[in-house]
Formats: sequence, C-alpha cells, structure tokens
Amino acid sequence: MSYSAKVLSLLENCGATEGDRIIVETGQKKMEGILMPHHSFSNPDVIILKLGNGYNVGIRVSDSTRVRLIEKAISKSMKRSEYAPQIERKTISVIGTGGTIASYVDYRTGAVHPALMADELVSAVPEISEICNVRAEVLFSIFSENMTVQRWQALAEAVADKLGEGVEGCIIPHGTDTMGYTAAALSFMFESLPRPVILVGAQRSSDRPSSDAYTNLIAAARFAVESDVAEICVLMHESPSDTSALIHRGTKVRKMHTSRRDAFKSINAWPIARIHFEGGIEYLSDYRKKNGNRVILKKEMEENVALLYFFPGMSVSKFENILREHRGIVIAGSGLGHVSSDMVHSIARAIRSGTTVVMTSQCLYGRTNLNVYDTGRDLLAAGVIPGEDMLPETAYVKLMWVLAHAASEKDIESMMRENLRGEISQRRELDE
Amino acid sequence: MSYSAKVLSLLENCGATEGDRIIVETGQKKMEGILMPHHSFSNPDVIILKLGNGYNVGIRVSDSTRVRLIEKAISKSMKRSEYAPQIERKTISVIGTGGTIASYVDYRTGAVHPALMADELVSAVPEISEICNVRAEVLFSIFSENMTVQRWQALAEAVADKLGEGVEGCIIPHGTDTMGYTAAALSFMFESLPRPVILVGAQRSSDRPSSDAYTNLIAAARFAVESDVAEICVLMHESPSDTSALIHRGTKVRKMHTSRRDAFKSINAWPIARIHFEGGIEYLSDYRKKNGNRVILKKEMEENVALLYFFPGMSVSKFENILREHRGIVIAGSGLGHVSSDMVHSIARAIRSGTTVVMTSQCLYGRTNLNVYDTGRDLLAAGVIPGEDMLPETAYVKLMWVLAHAASEKDIESMMRENLRGEISQRRELDE
Repeated sequence: MSYSAKVLSLLENCGATEGDRIIVETGQKKMEGILMPHHSFSNPDVIILKLGNGYNVGIRVSDSTRVRLIEKAISKSMKRSEYAPQIERKTISVIGTGGTIASYVDYRTGAVHPALMADELVSAVPEISEICNVRAEVLFSIFSENMTVQRWQALAEAVADKLGEGVEGCIIPHGTDTMGYTAAALSFMFESLPRPVILVGAQRSSDRPSSDAYTNLIAAARFAVESDVAEICVLMHESPSDTSALIHRGTKVRKMHTSRRDAFKSINAWPIARIHFEGGIEYLSDYRKKNGNRVILKKEMEENVALLYFFPGMSVSKFENILREHRGIVIAGSGLGHVSSDMVHSIARAIRSGTTVVMTSQCLYGRTNLNVYDTGRDLLAAGVIPGEDMLPETAYVKLMWVLAHAASEKDIESMMRENLRGEISQRRELDE
Repeated sequence: MSYSAKVLSLLENCGATEGDRIIVETGQKKMEGILMPHHSFSNPDVIILKLGNGYNVGIRVSDSTRVRLIEKAISKSMKRSEYAPQIERKTISVIGTGGTIASYVDYRTGAVHPALMADELVSAVPEISEICNVRAEVLFSIFSENMTVQRWQALAEAVADKLGEGVEGCIIPHGTDTMGYTAAALSFMFESLPRPVILVGAQRSSDRPSSDAYTNLIAAARFAVESDVAEICVLMHESPSDTSALIHRGTKVRKMHTSRRDAFKSINAWPIARIHFEGGIEYLSDYRKKNGNRVILKKEMEENVALLYFFPGMSVSKFENILREHRGIVIAGSGLGHVSSDMVHSIARAIRSGTTVVMTSQCLYGRTNLNVYDTGRDLLAAGVIPGEDMLPETAYVKLMWVLAHAASEKDIESMMRENLRGEISQRRELDE
C-alpha cells in the first residue's frame, strides 16, 4: 500500500484492510462499501469503495473524513495467496492483453496505464471465485491500437492451449479500440471451437467511479460457466445503466462510441445473448453450442492487406500504389458499395495486376449491392468481390485469413462470399 | 408516352390521362390513385399510381385488368407547359444534381439511371405548386460518388446566384452516397447565408413503390417556405414509415444505412427539426434564422487532402507516402483517436515535413480525446490536431476549406478546433 499517512492512520485506527466493508464520512456525505485494493498508480489521498450497486467510487480524504469498520472481509475477499481452486467449480482461463480493463489511472499525470496483471484483476473481483476457478495469465500488456497479426496469432495459440487443457471457456480482457478486429481474427482462425471465448473490455478504468471493468468481468465468468454457447464473442454493457451486458458475435460487432460504456453494437445482426447482472441469461439469436469436438486452429494470415476508405476527391494517382502494392484490399465504399468512376478504373488495373478487392459500405448498416447502379456493375465487371453485409473491419480480417487459406483464385471469391463464421447475414433478415 | 398498346387502349377507353384519379382492377386487387407520368425508362406494361398514403405503386397490366376513371385532373395536375408562377407565393429554386431522387429504373436492365430533369421531377409532384413557385434547373446529372471539389464549387456558385436573385430557399436533389460530404462542403463555403439550402435525396427511385422522392421533395418545399431556418441542411425520412422527415445540420449528418429510407442520422447532435407529413414543423435544436444579410461565398478548397482509416496491421511503410504527399490528412483513428505506435512515428515525420494531420474517431459517435492515454499524448506532442466530435467526413471537408483560408500555420489549428458551422458540439452536451 502507498496511501498517504492521513489515509493510513484512518484505516489503521478502525482496523480496516482491503476487502472489508466500511463507511466513509466526509462532511455531509456518507458512503458504505467494500474497501478496494490500492495500487502504486492510485492517488495516495483517495480511498476507493465498491458500492452495493457495483459502482466504484473514489473518495478524497480530508481532515474531517471519518472511517468506520462495518464488517471484516470473510472468504469472499480472500487474498490472492490464500486463494485455492474449488474442485467442484468449473475452471475458466483469463488471458490478459492489456487495455482499459486492466488499467489504472496514474494520479500524477492523469494518464491511464495498462498496469494491472490478470491475476490482480481477478483478485479485485471476489465475486468471480463464487462462480468458477480461475487460471489467470498475462500474455501482453498493450494498448489495443498496437495489436498486430502476430499478436492475434499468439493469442489464438494461447486460447487453443487453454481449451486443450479442458477449461470451460476463455475470458480475454482486451482494449476496446480494436477488440472488434481481434474478435473477428479469432473467429476466422478457429475452425472448430468446443467452448466459448469471451473478449471483454471496459470504457472506464477499474479504479474510476462507474468503472464497467468488474461488472463485465463477472458477467463474462457467468456466461462462460452458465451458458451453452461456444463462439468467439465480445461482452460489454448494453446501456449506460448498470443492469445488463450483451454478448455480441465476434464477426458482427463494432465500437460505435468513443467513451460510453455501451459503445459496442452488433451491426446487421442481433446480439447472441443478454446477461442480466441480477441473474439470468436471455438468448437473442441462434448460436453454436458447446460440443466435444477438438479445437482446430488455422492461424495463418496474409498480412499484405489494407482497408481503404473512399471519399469524394480521393486522388487516384496517389492511391494507385496502395492498391497495387497490397495482395488484398477492402474498400469501405459509399452507399451500396460505390467509388468514383476514376477509382473504378484504378481498381480494375489493380485487379488485373493480381490484387484481390472486396467492397463493403462505409454506411456500416445495410448490405452492399453492386447490381443496382452502373457504378456497381462496373465494379463487378472489374472483378470486385461484394462484401455482402460484412463490416469493413470484419471483411479486412476475413480477407487476410482467406488469402492464406484459399486453394485457388476462384476459391478466394467463393470463400469471401460464403458465410463462414456468422459474418454474413441472410438477406432481408434485418431489413425494414 | 411509350406505353404498350394494351395499356394505351385501357387508358384511352376510359379517357384517363396523366394526373387523373383512376381505379385499376387486376384479378382480386383494386387500387385507386393518381395516374403518374410515364417515362421512356418505365416498363411499357406498368401503370404507376400514386396512392392516398403518398406511396407510388406499379401495377403490371394483364388481359384481365380493368381501368375506371374517377375524376379528371384539375389545376393540381397542370401540365408543365400550362404551369404559370403564382405571384402571391414565395419562389424556391430547385437545382438538380442527379442521384436516385432524379432516377428512373430502366425496365430493360433493371439498373437505375439519373435520367430525370429537375423540372420533370417537380412537375411529377403537383403538391409543390400549392406550396410555392419553382424555378428548376439541372446543374449535373451524376451519381453522387462522382462528386468532386469542382462540382461542390459549381453548386455553391449556382446556390449563391439563386439566393442573390431573392429566392426563398434552394432545394438540391442529390444522390445520397455523398450527400453528407456535399452538405459539409456547402456549410463551410457559405460564410453568410440569408435563407435555407436543403439537400434532399431518395433511397428508392421515383417510379418505385414506396419511393421517398416525392414526400421528401414536398417536405423540403414546405420547410423552405414555412420555417425560419437559414442553414445548409439535409432532409430525409425519419423512420421507415411515411410520417415525418428530419432536417439535419449539414456538418453533423451521415448516411448510416445502405438502403433504408431513414438512412441519414445526425451524429453527436440533435437534428434541427422534424417535419410532419400531415403538417407542422417541430424544432429540435438551436439554428440560424433567416436574415437580411448578403450571401458571402468563400469557395476555395485545398484539394490535396485525404481521409485515412486506421486499422491494426496497417503497413507504415506503404502509407508513409500517402501521409507525406498530401497537404492535409484526416485520420479516422480507433477509440478516442488512436493509431499504432509506429504510425505515430510516421505521422510525426509527415507533420515535420509540412502535412497537417487531424484526428477523428472511426467510432463516429463520441468525442476524440488525446489526453487520456499515452498514444493520444504522443500524437498531440507530434502536432496532431484533435478533431473534437467532428465526423471524419466533415473534418476532411473542413480541412480542405481551412487550408485554403487560414492566414498562417497557427491559424489552421485554431480554425480546426473552433466551431465554425455547427460541426463541433459543446462538450458533454450529448454524453450519457
């Protein structure tokens, strides 16, 4: 602990330690909750309480602050060293990768660091030990904007290993910035998956008031154990309130807000399930069930692929090299999947020189259709592959995977147009 | 008219011509409506009726089809040649640019062509003549993916001319693919605007059942005449049902669905107004009012600007030239406005060599914040300008305009960070 002398004496005077239920009174305010762990990055003058509603709140201690001990921690808040697996409970694997969910605010700079180890994270959530046994490890500690193909592959191998050891599911705390991309990458890499892999993030770091880190982690543990789903999925808050989380299919999910806790949305698909924080799982769409099959991991990816955003005024001459130098290109076109006429010519030349080009829509919602307008027909004639209703990000990840696994040029197109991992919805399923 | 002999004789036998109210019976079905104009692209065997609910429906004529005349057209359906401006009514200008709203389905190929002239479009909507006098002209007839900076400028000049002539407002039928970009471009170009400019599109061509072309055009005419708003705005359906349209601010609107009629959404802002098709305008946010100021048009744009989408796995070496060769770059980064560490270095080099770089978020919703994480701080240190809560598309258009109008390097940053045309919302206005 590196609390200030003021805080230390307050806690020592009433005999309170980490995990105990206490009341903190400052002026008119009185708050009751569980005393949360203090980390080196935390402000030394702040006590963090976990309230009854699941929120964490940071209270700055002043000279008039008083602290009372209500209840000593019981087994619920066992220290990590005392923590022994419970034989009768299922075991899940937690594979840390970094991100806000594993981050602490550095009180000196106000910046957020991915400083928390997976086991620290788990030990900060005593509720998890009532749900399952946990094997926690840290694979990376990065901001997710630094995810790479190699890290996707290392993560997939770690998941395959854990599933091979027989765990009931894998939980992957992950930065939210590129969590959708990683979920899509794992989706394509696992051709056979017997149990669930749940990517879980947080939009508020775990020592901030209203952090979603703990509620999401607990929901992920419950979902891995209680549900019969065996998919790659993303778990995040359903709404700004603290009542439920959604399980999104890994190929259909996108971060749609920079900061809200309910930033992740299923696009052109229903989520797989809703997890009520008070208990209960509600299934919202079809899914693949837990099974006894062995894990099949195909992790090869063609890295020479790019995602290009079309915009009016795009300079064909400047982007010509980008088109030609990549083995594959996914374009986020306008509307039904369009680009300007001069870009059509440029794309046609790139395709003749061996680039595979897939068209998606920057609208995100809806389906590409290259049959309606002349522009689309010209693109089809040039050999562009329609991305159906795939997200641009998912199509990008899929193209990397398909280029590494297709047996022939023809195979590339048929694999891109086929629904391999729930990434393409059936036509009209979700239309008006 | 180029109806088939079968259709011609049915219409002639009952004395029905364009604009008349008729009943068409085919087998069990009986439909009453106004006989719509027939165009060279229309199927010669199909009669198009405008139903009471505003929908158009195409009825294929068979041998058992019967047609009855209910009511001859009165002044409501005056032929274009008979159309004389009404002095007491306000005059609006309709400047056609092409797009689905001005398109007809070619029955031979099923493709959609932007074949309809603005005056044909207006004459197909007799209701408009009850609202205002119309001066219609066609400026372009293109698919909007072929919009260019030069066309934005030509359009802005045409608008300035018409406003100079004293029209009550301009309506611009426009393809939906890049309507948001054009609306943003006009927004920045008009430094002073006395009356409204309304871009209006359709997701279904005007001869299809459930076309939104006519309802949107009528709503635009009503809004230009009845409201006191003087902004560049976009008008489209509010929902899939045919009950209301929304007026979106030109700098805050984005096409969010490939095909739905309610595809356009205001992002990080409330729409300006709701127009009920049954009558009535509801104001939803603050707006600039009609005024007596003269038009100030500043149409210069720096064309050497690009919009780049960040994705994990992005090859720094391949995109290095794109960064350096453009005078300005808007990046749609991940989350709060992030890119991978190696892209940060590449961006820093580009900025040192004279490129202006603005950061937005591919989440679309929410606000960039480069102060929270190390990546953001590094970007700020490199000289990246935060795009606040601007759409990537709006920031792209704004950067083109700012680079052409800023007096100095320092001015570029301050103009990009200032709210010039409603493109930046106040902090927290729309947060959770």
